[in-house]
Amino acid sequence: MSVEFELLARCPTTGARRGRLHTPHGVVETPCFMPVGTQGTVKTVGSDDIESLGYQLLLSNTYHLSLRPGSNVVSRLGGLHRFMGWKGAILTDSGGFQVMSLAHRRKVSDNGVVFQSHLDGSQVNLTPERSIEIQAELGVDVSMMLDECPPYPCSREDTEAAMRRTHLWAPRNLDARASGQAVFGIVQGGVFEDLRQESVSTITSYPFDGFAIGGVSVGEPTELQYPVVSMTAPLLPDDRPRYLMGVGHPKDILHAVAAGVDLFDCVLPTRMARHHSLYTLGGRVNARNAQWAEHDGPFDPDSVFPATARYPAAYIRHLFIADEPLGQRLATLHNLAFYGRMMSEIREAIERRSWDRLVERYQRA
Amino acid sequence: MSVEFELLARCPTTGARRGRLHTPHGVVETPCFMPVGTQGTVKTVGSDDIESLGYQLLLSNTYHLSLRPGSNVVSRLGGLHRFMGWKGAILTDSGGFQVMSLAHRRKVSDNGVVFQSHLDGSQVNLTPERSIEIQAELGVDVSMMLDECPPYPCSREDTEAAMRRTHLWAPRNLDARASGQAVFGIVQGGVFEDLRQESVSTITSYPFDGFAIGGVSVGEPTELQYPVVSMTAPLLPDDRPRYLMGVGHPKDILHAVAAGVDLFDCVLPTRMARHHSLYTLGGRVNARNAQWAEHDGPFDPDSVFPATARYPAAYIRHLFIADEPLGQRLATLHNLAFYGRMMSEIREAIERRSWDRLVERYQRA
Repeated sequence: MSVEFELLARCPTTGARRGRLHTPHGVVETPCFMPVGTQGTVKTVGSDDIESLGYQLLLSNTYHLSLRPGSNVVSRLGGLHRFMGWKGAILTDSGGFQVMSLAHRRKVSDNGVVFQSHLDGSQVNLTPERSIEIQAELGVDVSMMLDECPPYPCSREDTEAAMRRTHLWAPRNLDARASGQAVFGIVQGGVFEDLRQESVSTITSYPFDGFAIGGVSVGEPTELQYPVVSMTAPLLPDDRPRYLMGVGHPKDILHAVAAGVDLFDCVLPTRMARHHSLYTLGGRVNARNAQWAEHDGPFDPDSVFPATARYPAAYIRHLFIADEPLGQRLATLHNLAFYGRMMSEIREAIERRSWDRLVERYQRA
Repeated sequence: MSVEFELLARCPTTGARRGRLHTPHGVVETPCFMPVGTQGTVKTVGSDDIESLGYQLLLSNTYHLSLRPGSNVVSRLGGLHRFMGWKGAILTDSGGFQVMSLAHRRKVSDNGVVFQSHLDGSQVNLTPERSIEIQAELGVDVSMMLDECPPYPCSREDTEAAMRRTHLWAPRNLDARASGQAVFGIVQGGVFEDLRQESVSTITSYPFDGFAIGGVSVGEPTELQYPVVSMTAPLLPDDRPRYLMGVGHPKDILHAVAAGVDLFDCVLPTRMARHHSLYTLGGRVNARNAQWAEHDGPFDPDSVFPATARYPAAYIRHLFIADEPLGQRLATLHNLAFYGRMMSEIREAIERRSWDRLVERYQRA
């Protein structure tokens, strides 16, 4: 039931890697982007849609699913795959990030986090052991270790304290593993180079199945994010998958792939879609803009995808203006198709040694 | 560009007819149910979904589309089919019903209706000529005549006045037709048998391409609706399609088919779906009900459809409880699949002379 990472090719001019993650629910070609299905659903689209778009791995949330419907319920129903009708692989985050951003009255101690559910105010105790246990109950392919993820901006002192706690929790996460459960470690350390180095060296000393760079996307501006990624990614073990959590814009993903990152997740394509913002090779467009009111073609002739090709821009605009739920759905399908194609072209560019051409193609996206 | 009705078979024990409506956008097998796409979209689902569900004809609304995005815009974009990416046939109502139920400060005169748009308060003048012209601009396969549709309950006096005005407008609707534009007439007369008879005789004296029974569903209880349908449908010309507007529940449709009706439209399956009410052969079920919380199978093993078969009842319940938009979509797909199968089984039962068995099968639906 564990996962295995296979390295297929390296980009000759950058640190980009072309790989394959073998999971109990099929092969995941990397570099890979995971759509975010927070509550066991990628908002507005079904598992059949995600499958049709060619995705092989999606992300869901331990925090949300443990509160509703409850990991015990999902477990009794045969696991998250069966529950949401998804045949591909699933990675869950540990809940640490959501506890910090959503839960009320949280108290972090060396033992774990005690917080009030944002749904009904009930008190919940999340420890590394419990987080790993919940993810085992969900039956996912990749579990993430519980870490402490301080929000940006964060002083050096607080960043270091969160990192030390993350290090303290790392072995407890591993010890709690069920047989064959794949768990990824998470490197913290904020924007401080020496802390990141220390965190890499501590976290990678444990036998995790993969390694993530955490605490990067939480409101951090690009000029701080890029150096952290460039510096941290190459320090991670070459033989295991590297995952940059919560990133990001197309240009952020291109940058991180070039630094050697294999896995990504982000709410951007789906959240932007719900706010009528569509990714195209020519840049993001506002689907509600009057310029599309009588536009019979696509928003961008170079960004046309099977799932939405039959609908002219004017129609999608009309759906948003008329507050029709189909608008958010079509925009979501569009943006996920855009990200899916980008990842496929990234993999191709690494194999064909045409990285520079790819970067040029996506320079306005 | 007109439509042609072909009668294929008759039920030996009831008035039910098996037919085929030939339209510029393909053949429509009758009896047929039209999903309602009020604003050029069946709420939460795309034209690709409607197509996959096997529907050949859908209904859209002159009133809504003429206000937003405007029939001139749709016309410049190549018509409603192209606008909404729908390859099948489209019927539009005339706007009369929506003016009475949605518009503000309406004033009906023999000339037409003057009202304020419910969107921006602007004054709109809807006459029979204008309604037919709008529907021609939309480029639909079947246009409906503008009628006056009084809300239930309605006195005999008001019902008769609305009927007389409808009769007055009938020839004006026909005179306004574009070349080849198919227009259906509408019979009024409320719950009054003699008025219905008079209306049938007046409306059918004009060369409409089909005939509708109007003013039936507007809040009318079943015990008043059934006699009107039973009495009126058989009076309509045998060689043209008969359409019962705004109906209805499965049992209402079965009753009306047996009375000789060929076409139906109703918001019930889609609106019920958005209120988590799912049609099954065992009756309607509330998808939010706690009984489904850990139900790994379908809501009803006899009501399983390809579009939603992969999702257990517990998942669909979770989506509604968690306020996820996918819940309304899956419920809509389910209900439209249920109605689609019912219509297909109705057609089969007429052909195979097994009407009674069909009625028994749907007795709890």
